Amino acid sequence: MDGFLGELLGTFILIVLGAGVCCGVNLNKTYGKNNSTWLLINLGWGMGVTMGVYVAGHLGSLGHLNPAVTLGSAIFGLFPWSQVVPYLLGQFIGAFLGAAVVIIQYYPHFKVTKPEEGNTVGNFATIPAINNPVFNFLSEVIATFAFMYILLNLGNFTTGMKPFIVGFLIVSIGMSLGETTGYAINPARDWGPRLAYTLFPVPNKGTTNWNYAWVPMVGPIVGAVIATGLFKIL
Amino acid sequence: MDGFLGELLGTFILIVLGAGVCCGVNLNKTYGKNNSTWLLINLGWGMGVTMGVYVAGHLGSLGHLNPAVTLGSAIFGLFPWSQVVPYLLGQFIGAFLGAAVVIIQYYPHFKVTKPEEGNTVGNFATIPAINNPVFNFLSEVIATFAFMYILLNLGNFTTGMKPFIVGFLIVSIGMSLGETTGYAINPARDWGPRLAYTLFPVPNKGTTNWNYAWVPMVGPIVGAVIATGLFKIL
Amino acid sequence: MDGFLGELLGTFILIVLGAGVCCGVNLNKTYGKNNSTWLLINLGWGMGVTMGVYVAGHLGSLGHLNPAVTLGSAIFGLFPWSQVVPYLLGQFIGAFLGAAVVIIQYYPHFKVTKPEEGNTVGNFATIPAINNPVFNFLSEVIATFAFMYILLNLGNFTTGMKPFIVGFLIVSIGMSLGETTGYAINPARDWGPRLAYTLFPVPNKGTTNWNYAWVPMVGPIVGAVIATGLFKIL
Amino acid sequence: MDGFLGELLGTFILIVLGAGVCCGVNLNKTYGKNNSTWLLINLGWGMGVTMGVYVAGHLGSLGHLNPAVTLGSAIFGLFPWSQVVPYLLGQFIGAFLGAAVVIIQYYPHFKVTKPEEGNTVGNFATIPAINNPVFNFLSEVIATFAFMYILLNLGNFTTGMKPFIVGFLIVSIGMSLGETTGYAINPARDWGPRLAYTLFPVPNKGTTNWNYAWVPMVGPIVGAVIATGLFKIL
Repeated sequence: MDGFLGELLGTFILIVLGAGVCCGVNLNKTYGKNNSTWLLINLGWGMGVTMGVYVAGHLGSLGHLNPAVTLGSAIFGLFPWSQVVPYLLGQFIGAFLGAAVVIIQYYPHFKVTKPEEGNTVGNFATIPAINNPVFNFLSEVIATFAFMYILLNLGNFTTGMKPFIVGFLIVSIGMSLGETTGYAINPARDWGPRLAYTLFPVPNKGTTNWNYAWVPMVGPIVGAVIATGLFKIL
Repeated sequence: MDGFLGELLGTFILIVLGAGVCCGVNLNKTYGKNNSTWLLINLGWGMGVTMGVYVAGHLGSLGHLNPAVTLGSAIFGLFPWSQVVPYLLGQFIGAFLGAAVVIIQYYPHFKVTKPEEGNTVGNFATIPAINNPVFNFLSEVIATFAFMYILLNLGNFTTGMKPFIVGFLIVSIGMSLGETTGYAINPARDWGPRLAYTLFPVPNKGTTNWNYAWVPMVGPIVGAVIATGLFKIL
Repeated sequence: MDGFLGELLGTFILIVLGAGVCCGVNLNKTYGKNNSTWLLINLGWGMGVTMGVYVAGHLGSLGHLNPAVTLGSAIFGLFPWSQVVPYLLGQFIGAFLGAAVVIIQYYPHFKVTKPEEGNTVGNFATIPAINNPVFNFLSEVIATFAFMYILLNLGNFTTGMKPFIVGFLIVSIGMSLGETTGYAINPARDWGPRLAYTLFPVPNKGTTNWNYAWVPMVGPIVGAVIATGLFKIL
Repeated sequence: MDGFLGELLGTFILIVLGAGVCCGVNLNKTYGKNNSTWLLINLGWGMGVTMGVYVAGHLGSLGHLNPAVTLGSAIFGLFPWSQVVPYLLGQFIGAFLGAAVVIIQYYPHFKVTKPEEGNTVGNFATIPAINNPVFNFLSEVIATFAFMYILLNLGNFTTGMKPFIVGFLIVSIGMSLGETTGYAINPARDWGPRLAYTLFPVPNKGTTNWNYAWVPMVGPIVGAVIATGLFKIL
């Protein structure tokens, strides 16, 4: 139960801050529009992870906030299978609820933004910069592999300054490998908010692009499994 | 008395650095004009909080620097009621004095900047990006809820590297949730400098917009109370 | 002797990195020209101080790197007068030598940059954004007061993560108070490199503006003395 | 063997993240194109070093990731000669493999980018901003001297927050001294990826500019040797 609650609230915070920075940069009439760069978006997501990990850790979870991390760890015996379902449930529910809050936060800005002006599912989920399923999939595998492999080298990361380093790991992955697919590297981060954008009555909303959603679901899991396998071998 | 002095000097430093970065970016003929982004403004406020917390903590206060934090904590028994008045007094006085120093610092730049060019109360207090009282209020509630809930998970935050993390929490809230109302999330941070901009003879000054000021007063308190309540339940 | 060497090498590193970032941003045909903001310049100076403090601390000095810090501390009994001369000598000599290295580093870029294109003394010393001696002086007093007062609250700052915090203190002062005079807040940081730009055969160099130099000499010392006095009283 | 593996995987991570940020900024149709600054590129490389050092340190190496650091240390007795060959082999092989992964990551973007649009060897290796062999060489000597001298003052840097500081040291060198040659300051970081760009079938690739490659090989070694010598004397 600690794990479920911690992952739920931690992922909730992650998405409030992560989807929040995308809306603050892309929607019309915000203070961030035309006044922000790719660095700000990455710092927004990175600090979202930092703060989510502090919250999750305080509640007693391991701060995964990411089904790929949980599954990769479980498959190689680094995490108990009995906790996998509560962790995954917490992650997806938290991500969905976080996106709902962001919709309220930016409601007046959705009302003045058409899809072609920035009111897209990309504020909540990922869209590839170039549509190429094979390489989009490879891109998510590679980015998640790098993320997960480094993360495993950090050891327990929920206390002291470690959540800050994990946040900068996200910033780093985003700056260096995220410019291709928008770096989901986390199925819950993509599917939960995508579902929220689909279900809630967001004004002027664009297409929800579910036919792409298998990539940010499968790619990160494959990448995390390869990384954990390599880590165990070494 | 330690609390009063610590909060006064801490909030003074916070506003000197926070209102300072706004003036340095918005007023004419500064080195920051046309050379800065939303990220710089957020880092300016965030580091202002970091430095203010170091100063306040050194003088023996808890480094709230924010009436919403003090009140939310007191209501749920996390802070003694007997200290509430000295804390709030210190916060509002410190914020007022900090703004006065910023007016001196940028005096020649106010003289060459008209209201429509950037000489607005927005350098000292908050202005909503879209004027919508209901959603502006909700926006301050949500941003302060996120800020306060995460802050409570950090524990005592006045020593070691914690003030730095609290600063990046402010940066994070600003990047992700601040593009709607300019994120007061702190009644003293808004009212103290707004009063200073109103009272002092700032050259070319614009309207002071006091009819909006209830939002950055009530919204943050409501958000902080909800966050503290949730924290106590969990 | 430890103090002299530590201050010399620490200030040398500070100026190599600080004057370096200015040249990298302002001179023609660099990778930073038209590709940088006020934030980068502040981070350049801030990290210069961080690295300078690590170097100075390792050699056994207190990492002042700044005559205003040394004098303010000595006047109020926080630093022995017997060490003042070696500290100041180290600071000015280190700053001068650091600027000399930057001239070599960017030599081909000075050759292709005219004064009106960015080859000014401003890469080495400070130039006020608006020429107004009274307020320029006040601006240096206020910025140095804030810097020095916060610095004193940090305690010993040469080990662990403290040099990093001191670096971000510089970033903070620069972002929030530096847009008026370019924030010398340090007589050695201004006079050492100004002298180097004056004496060495920099191609296409502009005016050296020594008639302004009293401001970055006197203002910082006054600001640091006031800050130290306030710190002692409290 | 620990050293070989640690250096290989650490340098691999460094180049995945470092060459990655260059491709993400320079190639067409990425999310970073026209949306990034020199600061992002420096943070990309800096965090690449931070993460590479964590990985290398966890595997038991000293986290050099750089032949100039290894050789400079060995020459002055700070590192055993018996480990030099495994360290250097690991560094060059890791850098080569890292570049290969980046080519896959950005493959669809290479396909839509001509050399004159940003598909250059500069994404993988260094190109001087102004072609001037003498000063390019001096520039690499000076930048590596500053890097190495500061690094030696940090002591063992593979644990705690030290890898983060080393990352910001790279950011600092890049911001302040890197605008001239692109700051190789590391022969493996330049030659490994340059070789990968040369050998692999990158679509639309530009010239590989091997006649410049002696500068990023010799300059960093000379700079690191001078810095280590000075450190030993002091």
